[in-house]
Amino acid sequence: MKRPPEIAITRLAMYLRLLEDYAREKDSKSAINSTELAQLLDINPHQIRKDLSYFGKFGERGLGYRIEELKEKIRRILGLDKQWNLCICGMGNLGSALFAYRGFKAMHLAVVAGFDNDPHKIGREYNGAKIYRTKSISSMVKKLGIEMAIIAVPASTAQSIVDALMKSGVRAILNFAPVSLVVPSNVKLRNVDLSAELVHLTYFLSAPK
Amino acid sequence: MKRPPEIAITRLAMYLRLLEDYAREKDSKSAINSTELAQLLDINPHQIRKDLSYFGKFGERGLGYRIEELKEKIRRILGLDKQWNLCICGMGNLGSALFAYRGFKAMHLAVVAGFDNDPHKIGREYNGAKIYRTKSISSMVKKLGIEMAIIAVPASTAQSIVDALMKSGVRAILNFAPVSLVVPSNVKLRNVDLSAELVHLTYFLSAPK
Repeated sequence: MKRPPEIAITRLAMYLRLLEDYAREKDSKSAINSTELAQLLDINPHQIRKDLSYFGKFGERGLGYRIEELKEKIRRILGLDKQWNLCICGMGNLGSALFAYRGFKAMHLAVVAGFDNDPHKIGREYNGAKIYRTKSISSMVKKLGIEMAIIAVPASTAQSIVDALMKSGVRAILNFAPVSLVVPSNVKLRNVDLSAELVHLTYFLSAPK
Repeated sequence: MKRPPEIAITRLAMYLRLLEDYAREKDSKSAINSTELAQLLDINPHQIRKDLSYFGKFGERGLGYRIEELKEKIRRILGLDKQWNLCICGMGNLGSALFAYRGFKAMHLAVVAGFDNDPHKIGREYNGAKIYRTKSISSMVKKLGIEMAIIAVPASTAQSIVDALMKSGVRAILNFAPVSLVVPSNVKLRNVDLSAELVHLTYFLSAPK
């Protein structure tokens, strides 16, 4: 199987979201073809077929895709068919904001712990998850079965936190700290880079019309 | 001039960041060629030349790019050579976290106002910028010359805030609310979609090795 590009994964998630909304609205219809799906997404139907082709055979000639089956298959491909345990490192404004994020639940992501060094925060509970001292990362990762982590600490301490997480077996990290982190190839790192987003806005405002 | 794709803008910002770091370290060197630049970025030199070619002629045969000149040109292309006035809508945990973001200054972005409906927050100052009631968006946008906005309000109110901003002349918006916003083609909208990032992690963790 050829390895799909990252953008194909982004699009699969988009297809899934659309199918979920679509199924909610038109519950009588049980199938959709790639042309209809493409129209709803304002995208080329070839693209949809290609993105799906990385993961096997989908759909039936003349009928299209059975909606429930396609949703289930995409969920399984994306790892959204089971629960993952997540921790949030850094309980400042951003970390606290993330604790309140409602999207985790829809993705079956369970925030099971937060980490911080502030004695006033340690021991407190947010949405049922406790805050632990940063030093206890390795023991708590093992104890709670943490598989994913979000980094919301300052740039200066982000790499050392990530090192502790990886040492304990965490293999998927979403980083909000404005710093380039180093991880080995068996660890997945995604960065939310605010300045990279903002530069598209300054470019747009200053580009000649 | 052919319109550059969005990804070329992302890469230009990356080139600029590298050149700034590079210039800091090796201040004796005044020029760099696309092969050297490509090596530092682990990218194809053709890509660099193509990305720059959207914006005119760069570099000299045999010499490469004069570093200071290239930095200045990229800054101008990206709109980073002047100050833009920015507001943050929604002063919950996320909005407050954004107020403390240090990257704005490096991009010459001035956060000149925050907006919220909470009477306890209205009138307070964060880093020298005042919080105003949401109802006063249109008057304050004009008074303070606000050109860009960050949306950190709940999904349910995001579109109405964006409508008010656009009506007052704001043309560049960064959205953190988990909702698809509708804007006309003369307004630039970028979305920071947390669930789209997280799905890359769940996919990675569940993909066959």
